[in-house]
Order: sequence, then C-alpha cells, then structure tokens
Amino acid sequence: MVEPTPSVTRTAVGIVGGGPAGLMLSHLLAASGIDSVVLDNRTRHQIEQTVRAGILERDSVRLLVDAGVSDRVLREGHEHEGIELRFGGTGHRIDFQDLVGESVWLYPQTDVFMDLAVARERDGGDVRFGVTDVAVHDVTTDAPRVTFTDSDGRACEVRCTVLVGADGSRSTCRHEIPEEQRRHFYREYPFAWFGILCEAPPSAPELIYSHSDRGFALISQRTESVQRMYFQCDPAERVEDWSEDRIWEELQARVAGDGFRLKEGRITDKTVLPFRSFVCEPMRHGAMLLAGDAAHTVPPTGAKGLNLALADVRVLHECLERFLGGDADALDDYSARALQRVWRAQHFSYWMTTMLHRLPDASDFDVRRQVGELTSVVSSRAGSTFLAEAYTGWPGRKD
Amino acid sequence: MVEPTPSVTRTAVGIVGGGPAGLMLSHLLAASGIDSVVLDNRTRHQIEQTVRAGILERDSVRLLVDAGVSDRVLREGHEHEGIELRFGGTGHRIDFQDLVGESVWLYPQTDVFMDLAVARERDGGDVRFGVTDVAVHDVTTDAPRVTFTDSDGRACEVRCTVLVGADGSRSTCRHEIPEEQRRHFYREYPFAWFGILCEAPPSAPELIYSHSDRGFALISQRTESVQRMYFQCDPAERVEDWSEDRIWEELQARVAGDGFRLKEGRITDKTVLPFRSFVCEPMRHGAMLLAGDAAHTVPPTGAKGLNLALADVRVLHECLERFLGGDADALDDYSARALQRVWRAQHFSYWMTTMLHRLPDASDFDVRRQVGELTSVVSSRAGSTFLAEAYTGWPGRKD
Repeated sequence: MVEPTPSVTRTAVGIVGGGPAGLMLSHLLAASGIDSVVLDNRTRHQIEQTVRAGILERDSVRLLVDAGVSDRVLREGHEHEGIELRFGGTGHRIDFQDLVGESVWLYPQTDVFMDLAVARERDGGDVRFGVTDVAVHDVTTDAPRVTFTDSDGRACEVRCTVLVGADGSRSTCRHEIPEEQRRHFYREYPFAWFGILCEAPPSAPELIYSHSDRGFALISQRTESVQRMYFQCDPAERVEDWSEDRIWEELQARVAGDGFRLKEGRITDKTVLPFRSFVCEPMRHGAMLLAGDAAHTVPPTGAKGLNLALADVRVLHECLERFLGGDADALDDYSARALQRVWRAQHFSYWMTTMLHRLPDASDFDVRRQVGELTSVVSSRAGSTFLAEAYTGWPGRKD
Repeated sequence: MVEPTPSVTRTAVGIVGGGPAGLMLSHLLAASGIDSVVLDNRTRHQIEQTVRAGILERDSVRLLVDAGVSDRVLREGHEHEGIELRFGGTGHRIDFQDLVGESVWLYPQTDVFMDLAVARERDGGDVRFGVTDVAVHDVTTDAPRVTFTDSDGRACEVRCTVLVGADGSRSTCRHEIPEEQRRHFYREYPFAWFGILCEAPPSAPELIYSHSDRGFALISQRTESVQRMYFQCDPAERVEDWSEDRIWEELQARVAGDGFRLKEGRITDKTVLPFRSFVCEPMRHGAMLLAGDAAHTVPPTGAKGLNLALADVRVLHECLERFLGGDADALDDYSARALQRVWRAQHFSYWMTTMLHRLPDASDFDVRRQVGELTSVVSSRAGSTFLAEAYTGWPGRKD
C-alpha cells in the first residue's frame, strides 16, 4: 500500500495552536511581512463556545489595538481602575490608577480569540481549524515539519523554518523535547474553583477577591446582565451536589460583612475548575519554540494566564523577526527573556492564591497570619503598589 | 506545722520576668512615678551569659535613649542602613535609608538587658533575680498577688493592682488563663538554625540573608573580631556532628557566587536553634497582662522578637499610666492594640522565613518560585520598600 502524497505547504513559521497566542503571533508576523500557517485541532466554533474569563493588562490591550487586531476591547471591554481585597468582613480597594497610573480591562478571552480570528480572516491569514493527527517532525533540524489531516480528511504537511508550539497546557509540541533536555516544574493545589455564570446585574463595579474563614471567593463581572463568580472548593466537588440555593448561600457567606450582599440570579453554568502551576524550561528545543500555556500555566487568582501568553508572543515576534532577517543567534535568548516574566508571574499567582485561599490543613495561625498579611498589604502604600504593579503586569517593564 | 508568714510587698504593678520587656516596663513606670516590683527566676549573671542576637529598630533605640536607660547603643551599636538579600549567587542590597529613611542597629539583646539592669539599679528599682517557686494568684480580682521564695530562701509575696506577665515563651503567667478563655495560635517549622560564634573579622558590613539550593544562611556580625552566622538545618541536627571544616564548607557553599568568600576563624560556640510561631489571644486576663515572648514568639528571620516585646511595653506603659491614673477602662484596648503589630510581625517573619528557607519537601517549582519572588522584591522599589518598612518596624506607625 502506497501512502498518499501529502499536500505540502511551505512557510516561514509553522504555528501549532490557534488560540490567542498562536493567532496573535501569526498576526504580528504578517504585519512584519513574514508568512505563517496556524493549525488547531479544535474547530473555530468549539473555541468560541469555551467560556474563558479575561482580565487584560494594559500592554495586552495595547497589543490588540496597536497591532490593528481590533479596538472592540476599548468599546466593549470595561476598564477597571482597581480591585477590592475583602477580608474580616470589610472591603479594601487597591486603586491601580492612584498607585501605578494603570488600569486593567475586563474582556473575556473568548472575545480576544474572536477578534483575532476575524482579523486573520480579514488579512488572508492561513489558519486551519479542526485538523487532526497533528505531529511535529525534525524539530532539531533547520527544516522542521508538521503533518496533519485537514478538516476535509486530506493528508497535509507544513514545512517551515521555525516551528512554534502554542498548543496549550496539553501541548503536543512540548512532549517532543526529550526528558533529559528539559525540566518541568510543578505545583499542585489542594483546592479548585467552583465557577458559575448567572443572570444578574453586577454586584460590584470591580473584581472582589474575598478571604474568609470559609475559603476564597472571587466576584467577577461579564456584562450588565451576566456575572461570573467563583468560590474555592474541593477538587473532587461535584456540581450536581450544588443547588442554586446552596451556591448562593455559600457565596453570600464568603463575602458577608458590612451589609454587602451579592445580587442573585438564575445560574446558567456550573463548573469545577482545578488548577496548578507549571513551567517547562527551556521554552525552546532546536527550531521549535513554545509560547503561552504550552510552556507554563498559572493558578487563575492573579489573572495572568492570557497576559503571559501575549507577553511571550511579543518577545517571540521580535526574536523571529531578527532571526528570519538573518541574525542566526536571535532565537537564543527567547527562552531566558520570556522566563523572567514567567517566574515573576508564577510567584504573583502563587502569592495571591496562598494569601487568599484556605488550605485544607490550615491552622488557626495560618488564617490569622493571612489576615496580618492582607492588613499589611492594604495599609502600606508600598505593599499595595507591589500588588498593583504585578496585577497590571509590571507596566513599563521591558522583557 | 504553721506556714511561715511571707514577707509582703505592696506595689502598683507586679512584673513577672526580668528580661528586656519586664525591666523596660518597670523603668518607664518609674519615670511616670509608678511603683513596680520585678521578679525573675534566673540570676542576673545567667541572663547576662545567654547569647542573644539583636537587631534594634529605630523606635527600640529611641526608647532606650529617650527614656534615659543608656545611650551605649549609639556608641557601641552599629547602625545598619540596609541588608543584603543574596540569591542565585548574587547580592542585592535593600537600602533602608533610601527606601524609608530609616536604619536599624546591631546591638545584642544581652547588652539591652545589661543596660536596663544597670539603669534599674541606678534608679533604685525593685528587681529581684534568682527567685524560685513563683506563683500568681487572684489575677481576675482587683488584688492580684505573686508568691515566691527569694534568693535567700525567704517566702515572699507581692500584692499589686495590676500584674504583668513578661516571663518569656515558657510563661507561667500565660498558663493562668483558662483554656476556654484564650486561643493559642501555632506554627511549627520543619527546620532550625545552626548558629555559630567565631573569631574572625566581619565578612560584610551588613547582614546577609542568603537563599541557596542548599538552604538559607544568615551572615551577621557581633564585633570587629567576633561574628555570628547561621545556616538552616534539620531540627534534629547534632552540633557534635559538625566539625569546624564541615561548618565552613557548608556556610561558604550557601553564600557562594560572584567571588564572595566568608572570612573564617575559630568557632567558639555551636548551637541548634529551633523556632516556631506562636500567639496567645487575648494578651490580657483580668488584672494580668502579657507582654513580649510570654504572648508571642516569631521565627528569628525577621529580627522582630525583641522589638515586638518593646513595642508591647510602649503600649502597655501608656495603658497602665491611664489606668492607674483613674481611667478604669484603660486596660481594655491593650490586647487589641498590641495584637495588630503582633500579627503584622508574624506575617513578616513568616514571609522572610518562607521566602528564604528551603522546605524539606520543596519541589523544584518552589525553589524557582522563591527566586521569582526575590527577583520581584529586589527589582521593584515598592517591593523593596514593603520589606524595608517591615524590617525597620513600620516607622511612624502609632500602635
């Protein structure tokens, strides 16, 4: 039996993964006159249906707007000039504008994806959703390849100069790196988030990060009539054990104090979201470079996941531009440069997580110490600024 | 058999514990015209022979000087305008003067004790060292008593209006509080400090807090010819298993990098120092008030122990002055006021400890995350300031 001859496409950069990182990189490369092909094993519709939260740092917003992807974030996103840290039954505002002169934007990751997908389509980008059997080859040579079956069942191959793995936390690309040539850094957490979507008006104008004896809760927003809220739970919790009444009782208890009440409404989605910390070092293997969740995942408490992926892409775009322009060493410092921000963000996400969540084996000391820490942070301008700098993404910092 | 009639002394404030907290309180009360009697079951010589480190916040120095105890700290203490955080083989200075306009002073706790003991003697204070069989009675009445046997074997009794327990971490007084009327908050740490005294010139002008893959080390100073150094060890470590050579090898390895070497010398003292975090709430029971280690202990990493004791004493002196001046409610807020600083200091001590030590079960992720945290702290002015504020004792803060 003869193997069918695959349909071959040649391009400068093959990008595995059509989420925000992959599409943004492809968009930036196109603006620099560099061809790329993007592959994703999900359909565009599947990605659009995945509920993903989103807090964008100003630099992420700038990237979308300045690169000409879309300015929808400015019209439909909500600028948040701070967050509330809530503990001991009282809210304490961290005023980002006052502390660091910055804001963040509430704009779901799903919308970032849609904007990018529309922009790539508009600009004639080669993006292939719904492919199967993706496999990468020859990544340590100067002619790496990706083979796959396209959505019409045809065998295809992309031959490129550089390969980018932006294929998410269960990355296929990452697994190409031989064990002895990479290190994986993990941390598991003994809790998860119980997330809901509900039909209700916003309970607060900004995100509320709430510490309580019952555990953490996050009150977020989506639109004027749909809200997103989370509370810390056991990773083994089952959504079917939680009636609407029980959920509201738990959420109200976790933010109680000084008369504050959440605005309740019909719950349209319930999900248990486990999370962990993960970093793969280095973020490069030969002609293959990793970006975003493929190389690192963070707990959601610091809202860093998407922003970190876009920060990778900014650095990677610059390195690729130089490399493909003839600077043979230009890929060498990508990993080290990207990892500096990654580890800062890992620490920030860990810090927010451990400051606000209740560990299952927490002693009373630990809970009081957390309140001592939160008190220090909110009552010290330096402490609040340290948090605001990280939350807004270390504005002004050059990666 | 007839019990011998005890020799009775009446005083306003009975103070159990003649360490720095008890003596300072007695000194301040005397300056306000309030009588006190101080009891301690150790001899003065025993206390003077106990090696205790000492970093004094400016407010602690001010208290010694302004209250007329002694200005020896200004002449013989060493002003330190910063510390060094060392990680990844490189030192990073935290410049307290630049960040918060403050310094700390290197001045051993033993010297603070000697200054206070001399001052109390000079001023005719009633301080009785080397007593035995100390027992407190009637602490919930308005006539509490302390019975004891003095150093000459006589049965004695002190009758007072208010009783202060400043009798250290193994406090007798604290145990008078019925279990149902207090809460104890604990945290144990799975490591201890191996401390040495050595005959060598200083290796650095300021304290070095060093993070390394082998664990934490602290390079401190004592005099021009005697130095104090510590390295993190297992709490079960035995000093006899550590030769001088092995100690120096370990210490050098923990601070290695960029050519830095410790100046070695004969080791004259080796001790394994376990530590823990502890708070007793409230710090009052009826007419008995707790101060210093009797109510709380902190890991030594933040150098907060003695400073926290002196901060308690400042607040307590003010409350006692008002109370004995006729304000019957003046003791009511002592505990809440003191505990605010206590919990901030608990958090700071825990933070310094967990940022710098290697947990026995630390994953590679944890170690990298610590480096990410240290990098954030030293490269952000806000982060460095947040640390400097706490290390220098939140200068300007009113307890």
